[in-house]
Amino acid sequence: MTGPCANRDEFEARLRQIGEERYHDKHPFHHRLHAGDCTEDQVRAWVINRYYYQSHIPMKDAAFMSRINDPDLRRIWRCRMEDHDGVEEGNGGIARWLKLAKGVGLDPEYVKSETGVLPATRFAVDAYVNFVREQPLVPAVASSLTELFAPRIHVERISGLLKNYAFANQETVSYFQHRLNEAPKDVAFGLAWVLENAHTQHDQDQAVVALMFKTDVLWAQLDALFSAYVNPGRIPPGAWRPGQGLLQ
Amino acid sequence: MTGPCANRDEFEARLRQIGEERYHDKHPFHHRLHAGDCTEDQVRAWVINRYYYQSHIPMKDAAFMSRINDPDLRRIWRCRMEDHDGVEEGNGGIARWLKLAKGVGLDPEYVKSETGVLPATRFAVDAYVNFVREQPLVPAVASSLTELFAPRIHVERISGLLKNYAFANQETVSYFQHRLNEAPKDVAFGLAWVLENAHTQHDQDQAVVALMFKTDVLWAQLDALFSAYVNPGRIPPGAWRPGQGLLQ
Repeated sequence: MTGPCANRDEFEARLRQIGEERYHDKHPFHHRLHAGDCTEDQVRAWVINRYYYQSHIPMKDAAFMSRINDPDLRRIWRCRMEDHDGVEEGNGGIARWLKLAKGVGLDPEYVKSETGVLPATRFAVDAYVNFVREQPLVPAVASSLTELFAPRIHVERISGLLKNYAFANQETVSYFQHRLNEAPKDVAFGLAWVLENAHTQHDQDQAVVALMFKTDVLWAQLDALFSAYVNPGRIPPGAWRPGQGLLQ
Repeated sequence: MTGPCANRDEFEARLRQIGEERYHDKHPFHHRLHAGDCTEDQVRAWVINRYYYQSHIPMKDAAFMSRINDPDLRRIWRCRMEDHDGVEEGNGGIARWLKLAKGVGLDPEYVKSETGVLPATRFAVDAYVNFVREQPLVPAVASSLTELFAPRIHVERISGLLKNYAFANQETVSYFQHRLNEAPKDVAFGLAWVLENAHTQHDQDQAVVALMFKTDVLWAQLDALFSAYVNPGRIPPGAWRPGQGLLQ
């Protein structure tokens, strides 16, 4: 112990408060998206950029496992990779994301190429992978706890997309539907692990900073998207431009 | 292409030749082990140190996957982690290694604690994990190709152990029995990947150096074991000493 330590409940409340204040469900891009105010091209830009985040989540999970010498913890964590990459070709979260890409008229091969992703998206996502590769294990796990706040945004998104966009149907929104089942079990484990392993006040503070960092990673991606494709709509050199990467 | 490139067959022959010259089946510690010339304590020392290697192989595989943004390649590679860590608790290669540990009278919890592992074992194994984390992908994959040479040593080991040691039975040698099935599919994929992706002479040279490095990693572990527990038998400070970590 390095100092007097808040009890578990207070610590958990501190973590949950971060969601109230900083989670990206509060970002105006999401408000527009869920309300049906995005143009087709703005949805496409979101799908292209968010793909980069999705494809890097299993890399982040692998980076975490590369630091764990306990086979049991690795095995439990490995199911996150299974959820995203699939157990067989075509049945994981990333494959479902590509169905959404197709649904909005994008060529899945273009999306997979990660060409045209905004540099700010890359920087934010790569910072997350590096964080998990390099930071102590408590903050590394704590950074995954934005999943605590995800079910609410997924529910909102599923109904918002289905209501407001012609491309939206059970198949194209299946990514979010699956996350509703997957995220809670992951985050229950992650939260319990952090509560159990953050022994000192210093550990708890590091966990809080890590979760704030992760909300920054998510928020920065939407800021970049907004700047490039909504207002002022200044697309950076080399980034995706409407008309590129469409299904033939 | 950076220069004229040997054809695939010549490149493959170059890789295979490394096994002929440098694989650790030629190390005197293995000759003693398989011939029944090791004392019980020498076998225990081998089991304790080799556990560290085993427990770090999935960390190495995770480090590799943490660098791969192709979900299909990650999914194929992930089965290596499943083989070692198991699909359920207690059914992977590491669990089978702990059966061997128990068979030779060691407390599995002591072995899992990785206390008493020779520093030289740690340095060699950690160097391997770091290599795969940091090197270009062709050498990173090429470093796994010592599995090309493994079936021979496993067959030799299974029969040598069963013939020469009271502790050896189908259960305690089940680790090696399983590797006979697992290793060939992994290495067939890894070899094909390296042959396919080593486009230039420079790539091929890097792959050869990587595989030589990996044979060094294996050889160095046996040298350290020999030095500490066979001849001269000078156990380094802090390393396992006979009598420690036994089953009660």
